[in-house]
Amino acid sequence: MKFPRVHTLKEIAELIDAKAVGPENYPISGCNEIHVVEPGDIVFVDHPKYYDKALQSKASVVLINKKVSCPPGKALLVVKDPFTCFNKLTTHFKSFQPASKSIADTAVIGENTIIQPNVFIGNNVIIGNNCVIHPNVIIYDNCKIGNNVTIHAGTSIGADAFYYKKRPEGYDKLLSSGSVIIEDFVDIGALCTIDRGVSANTTIKKGTKLDNQVQIGHDTIIGENCLIASLVGVAGCCIVEDDVILWGQVGTNSGITIEKGAVILGQSGVTKSLKGGKTYFGTPAGEARKKLQEVAKMNQFLRDQKKI
Amino acid sequence: MKFPRVHTLKEIAELIDAKAVGPENYPISGCNEIHVVEPGDIVFVDHPKYYDKALQSKASVVLINKKVSCPPGKALLVVKDPFTCFNKLTTHFKSFQPASKSIADTAVIGENTIIQPNVFIGNNVIIGNNCVIHPNVIIYDNCKIGNNVTIHAGTSIGADAFYYKKRPEGYDKLLSSGSVIIEDFVDIGALCTIDRGVSANTTIKKGTKLDNQVQIGHDTIIGENCLIASLVGVAGCCIVEDDVILWGQVGTNSGITIEKGAVILGQSGVTKSLKGGKTYFGTPAGEARKKLQEVAKMNQFLRDQKKI
Amino acid sequence: MKFPRVHTLKEIAELIDAKAVGPENYPISGCNEIHVVEPGDIVFVDHPKYYDKALQSKASVVLINKKVSCPPGKALLVVKDPFTCFNKLTTHFKSFQPASKSIADTAVIGENTIIQPNVFIGNNVIIGNNCVIHPNVIIYDNCKIGNNVTIHAGTSIGADAFYYKKRPEGYDKLLSSGSVIIEDFVDIGALCTIDRGVSANTTIKKGTKLDNQVQIGHDTIIGENCLIASLVGVAGCCIVEDDVILWGQVGTNSGITIEKGAVILGQSGVTKSLKGGKTYFGTPAGEARKKLQEVAKMNQFLRDQKKI
Repeated sequence: MKFPRVHTLKEIAELIDAKAVGPENYPISGCNEIHVVEPGDIVFVDHPKYYDKALQSKASVVLINKKVSCPPGKALLVVKDPFTCFNKLTTHFKSFQPASKSIADTAVIGENTIIQPNVFIGNNVIIGNNCVIHPNVIIYDNCKIGNNVTIHAGTSIGADAFYYKKRPEGYDKLLSSGSVIIEDFVDIGALCTIDRGVSANTTIKKGTKLDNQVQIGHDTIIGENCLIASLVGVAGCCIVEDDVILWGQVGTNSGITIEKGAVILGQSGVTKSLKGGKTYFGTPAGEARKKLQEVAKMNQFLRDQKKI
Repeated sequence: MKFPRVHTLKEIAELIDAKAVGPENYPISGCNEIHVVEPGDIVFVDHPKYYDKALQSKASVVLINKKVSCPPGKALLVVKDPFTCFNKLTTHFKSFQPASKSIADTAVIGENTIIQPNVFIGNNVIIGNNCVIHPNVIIYDNCKIGNNVTIHAGTSIGADAFYYKKRPEGYDKLLSSGSVIIEDFVDIGALCTIDRGVSANTTIKKGTKLDNQVQIGHDTIIGENCLIASLVGVAGCCIVEDDVILWGQVGTNSGITIEKGAVILGQSGVTKSLKGGKTYFGTPAGEARKKLQEVAKMNQFLRDQKKI
Repeated sequence: MKFPRVHTLKEIAELIDAKAVGPENYPISGCNEIHVVEPGDIVFVDHPKYYDKALQSKASVVLINKKVSCPPGKALLVVKDPFTCFNKLTTHFKSFQPASKSIADTAVIGENTIIQPNVFIGNNVIIGNNCVIHPNVIIYDNCKIGNNVTIHAGTSIGADAFYYKKRPEGYDKLLSSGSVIIEDFVDIGALCTIDRGVSANTTIKKGTKLDNQVQIGHDTIIGENCLIASLVGVAGCCIVEDDVILWGQVGTNSGITIEKGAVILGQSGVTKSLKGGKTYFGTPAGEARKKLQEVAKMNQFLRDQKKI
């Protein structure tokens, strides 16, 4: 999320009761996720395993639970519990606003756009021109839909990220301050779920087409002109590059990248990042060509055993 | 789709700017999909690989992108881009009509049928007697529901087919002019999606029962007295014959046939047509008995290796 | 289900035209499922394979299709078709009541609970304090939601159980008289389906978190502080104990138990009960450690074959 205005390090430190390392008037523009962070942003880190990644990222400010040495040009916000402080920032800048009606007065809807009955459109939603929003679609606050977008019945755009931290007393939820961006010429099937980002935006880029019952996790970016078939689940913080095809019931781990033009065959489970331009199959997903050779070899071996 | 009245070859040729091969007054009654096409129908074909199949089908008229020799008794409509011309026909005869209210005035609802709150029922929908349509169900235009049908909450009946052609500038959508037919005594769970046909009808036959979150693709026919468990995805243009059982999370390729009485065990992936009366398992799905023997043999081999 | 008041064996026998074995005034408090049955309850059994299980259960009364010897302290209701008689009891005590509005007058909604637009809340639903019920959620009659519960858009709570008996004339539905209980601090994602119990309650215990598009079958009990990722399907009559984690697209057979603290990796298929505290993978799911060893051994073998 971007703050409504730029704040200083001192202001944010006071807000979350942090020890600031850096110039008092160091400017901060928002919070973000590590895989898409930009200068001006805060990222948070609470596990030593990820300290280096956060400190070497493009983030200007690292919200951290140890007083480490501050990289040049950056600032630190040192607190006991960065997770809770990140939630404080979300609550302060982007708390949940209950709706007073089905289509918020603050929503902006473009020309020639059709909104069918029983649709929910939250606060500050922007929808472009020439869209069709079919019945019972739900678009949560602050989501942004481009031009020439079709969204079929019952789809949910912008529900909270599924992101929890285990505490001795139970799971603690990381609040979502991010949003969903649907670019031009995207088609979305019926009963899909596209979660908002924790602090970045979940994005579906231009020309991509989703079938029914597709799940896209928080902060994930789906490239241009991708095809995603029914019952696919793309986890959070993934990057799916342009021209990727995911066939039915494919699932992915979180945080992985599927490079440009890769094709993942049905029911495959993508456990790590995959190179582009190839076809993959299986769980864990491997190159389809090799997988098929292995299966053929194994079957030959089993037949040979029989003969002996 | 059937046209509102029978048209002549000449009329349709003029509508889509095609070169007609055949008698000017050759009668055409509608458009259809190749796996269910009937005399009087147009089918379209734009790839040489499928020319023969289209020309030898029961279609009376073939919309094609090459001037081939016309089979006796049939007619041709020759155009540069049959896909686009098929869309022109759909736009002309069955363009999307936005709703003015949640339950269209043109909808017909039978006796003793209960419609719960927040349901959407589109133009020209017909629902039979003794049905229960639970809250937030969406029934798109022109769908037809039989008698004694139960549809649970949030299910979408009749969203568009997921059918795109790759163009240099991005994916081009094939418009849907078909519908969905739900026969008598069908039960459909919550949050299912049953897409309309591209030009034929997606059909769920008498007595079949669907669990929650089931996806049925466009133009697919599900036979009588089938059981389909949760999170199953049946792709487009499939034929599932009577008495088939698909257990949870099964997926299928498009265009395949599963014959009468087959049982597909959970999470299997059906990649090609399957004979009836047998039980299948795995991805790609094979006869469960053989699959289990293979696994047993492999495990024995692994144990033997250990001993050496 | 519990009856509105305690009935006698004689009363119930007359209601369903059964031959009663036991004292006329033997008290009966309701109907229940065998895996959670309590004294005072009726269970039904119609297959000799399960007679012993039913007769030795905690049920006070067994509705059965054979005059067996009655265990001491229990009673029998002997009928030709226990399934149909069980349905008669449900129809008598808990028949479906159509809604007259989106939020029933008999629903009770706690303090500081936010109900977003287009939500359906059925008869006698109870929702606690500090909950957020997002748009287009459907909560069927008699379901009970605790305090501090969040339910995201379009989720269905309390649709009927998917439970059918094959008859020569088609599938016969077992009617659902049970309910759904969601305990405190549970979060449920968008477009989930949690079915009501057939005669018991489907229960999600305190602190458990569900991602989007999760399916929980009838009469299943999910323990405390579980994490269930997207597109998971837990079948009916399962027991998932506390602190279990089910990753994306996991599926289970019905009637199994997953013990405390087990972790099931993505896309696994759980075909039988699993011990707690371990990590599982594959279909059928086995211990992940062993599965990975097997795969490694197999790959080594295939490489060795290549060298020869």
